[in-house]
Amino acid sequence: MNDRFLRACRREPVDATPVWFMRQAGRYMKAFRDIRAKHSLLTVCKTPDLATEVTLQPIERFDFDASIIFADILLPLEPMGLNLEFVKGEGPVIHNPLRDKKDIEALKPVEPEESLAFVLQSIRQVRAALNVPLIGFSGAPFTLASYMIEGSSSRNYLHTKKMMYGAPELWTQLMSKLGRVIADYLAAQVKAGAQAIQIFDSWIGTLSPGDYRRYVFPHMKQLMTELHTFGVPVLHFGTGTSTLLDQQKEAGGDVIGLDWRVELDEAWNRLGHDVAVQGNLDPLTLFAPIPEIEKRVDNILKRAGKRPGHIFNLGHGILPETPLEAVEAVIDRVHQKSAAILAEQ
Amino acid sequence: MNDRFLRACRREPVDATPVWFMRQAGRYMKAFRDIRAKHSLLTVCKTPDLATEVTLQPIERFDFDASIIFADILLPLEPMGLNLEFVKGEGPVIHNPLRDKKDIEALKPVEPEESLAFVLQSIRQVRAALNVPLIGFSGAPFTLASYMIEGSSSRNYLHTKKMMYGAPELWTQLMSKLGRVIADYLAAQVKAGAQAIQIFDSWIGTLSPGDYRRYVFPHMKQLMTELHTFGVPVLHFGTGTSTLLDQQKEAGGDVIGLDWRVELDEAWNRLGHDVAVQGNLDPLTLFAPIPEIEKRVDNILKRAGKRPGHIFNLGHGILPETPLEAVEAVIDRVHQKSAAILAEQ
Repeated sequence: MNDRFLRACRREPVDATPVWFMRQAGRYMKAFRDIRAKHSLLTVCKTPDLATEVTLQPIERFDFDASIIFADILLPLEPMGLNLEFVKGEGPVIHNPLRDKKDIEALKPVEPEESLAFVLQSIRQVRAALNVPLIGFSGAPFTLASYMIEGSSSRNYLHTKKMMYGAPELWTQLMSKLGRVIADYLAAQVKAGAQAIQIFDSWIGTLSPGDYRRYVFPHMKQLMTELHTFGVPVLHFGTGTSTLLDQQKEAGGDVIGLDWRVELDEAWNRLGHDVAVQGNLDPLTLFAPIPEIEKRVDNILKRAGKRPGHIFNLGHGILPETPLEAVEAVIDRVHQKSAAILAEQ
Repeated sequence: MNDRFLRACRREPVDATPVWFMRQAGRYMKAFRDIRAKHSLLTVCKTPDLATEVTLQPIERFDFDASIIFADILLPLEPMGLNLEFVKGEGPVIHNPLRDKKDIEALKPVEPEESLAFVLQSIRQVRAALNVPLIGFSGAPFTLASYMIEGSSSRNYLHTKKMMYGAPELWTQLMSKLGRVIADYLAAQVKAGAQAIQIFDSWIGTLSPGDYRRYVFPHMKQLMTELHTFGVPVLHFGTGTSTLLDQQKEAGGDVIGLDWRVELDEAWNRLGHDVAVQGNLDPLTLFAPIPEIEKRVDNILKRAGKRPGHIFNLGHGILPETPLEAVEAVIDRVHQKSAAILAEQ
């Protein structure tokens, strides 16, 4: 069992820096495209044999140090009563977005062992086949709320911010409901075998520090406090977060995700070294020539230095168009270069 | 003549903080929608009487302290040889995006007095009618290049970064050509009567600090050095720039634009007080109830304090759905509250 990833989460020494990629099971692999040609995204998520197969594809093909269960952050929205569809070329669409008190009060509680049993079954199946740790995950309350309110991905978060500013008590009600669903969902994932959990607050970077403090922090703090009782490392991820990192750390997480807009060492210094960090290669770097990619990997590893607690990752999910050779080059370089740095006297 | 805006650009004392909004001539005003119902965006830009009319609409209706000429950052792309169209609901589309050496070598030099004469004529007409200063503007090289290469707005800047990383000499060639066009275009705007110029590097926040340093900074520095010889204040704007502000200041500008992701006082402290700042209300704040809007205006003014050199603005353009009452409330509150703060002993 390769335990580099879990050791790094706990800031314990490792022989080489662990590496995994967000969306590592994805369209950049032909094997994944072949499955998706025959099945919709939701069908793959809801069919444990298919979800297991795609989760394992990148582990079989590459030398990743962790696996993340194939699922979508929006899956818990269906049992809450939202009508979710993935429209080709457009991404997720929710046909009955939340706009008022009545919509939010109508949200249903979720029993993950029932309505999300397929994710738990996939976790059990993947665990049986893996020799690297398995990460479970969920969207964070703000990011899920933004999809539920906007009905799709958004540029401005008009309806979300309208509710936050104009109906703060409704917003609180929604965030509380989501916190409950997310905690139960992640507890069930851990019970099914997830050895770490990542919270994706992918779109939190649209908020000012003041709005984060007022509308998100209390809910994240409460959620994280509960997640920390589950006995597995908690990874706390967002993008565009350079002015939110201090609050994200205060809210909780054993590992804070960094995107490429910050320099890893500066961000880690600001966070303090009593927390691990994950990141932070721009996924677009994978379209550069290999020597350029290697230089950028080296730069991140040099900034991380010999201090335990760095997990190498992209700053956001890998793109469908990414060349396989680039993925291989990053993983190899991370392992070789970090082993050399860590072995230095 | 109300010269608060120009005085603030030069960090001279003012009786009240000047305020203007990016996209203040826009769809949130019925008078603007009436014009746009009859004419396309490009027609309004290219018809000085129409451009003059819409530029003046917000000045006649509200107590703004500056006017910005109605135009689009992409206008210089047409005389360079790009086939530009504004597609309803989609935004700008370029039908012949740049992808290789041949495309970039085919770009034509621009004589703004000829091919962009309509903008200059609009500036002359607006100036004759105004009693507040008139701002001219242009997109910055990176932001224009990203549209020229992607062919539209973009989430990931895949093709742009591919060229930056994979063909840096082509990238440099494109940035140099754009620097030349932009400097000539802005020189002509100043000659026609623009009393300040703003550079919109709206999408620069997609870059890591290292990429900004390598692929953008040298071009911005050179451009800004030239703009500073024009004898009018230069405003340097971007979004998502919290980790780029130091470099933006180093590149140049009398005024640095701040978006809502930074706290104004913290950002200004980091920049140093030898530069003015502009910002930084989240445009989405304008959808909050009026008392909440006023609290947020007060918070920004308090952070700016009594130090000269703050221009109040949104952190990005005003949205089409914005209520008129909110615009009025912000302007009044900025004037009243800042006058009170500045008058304190």
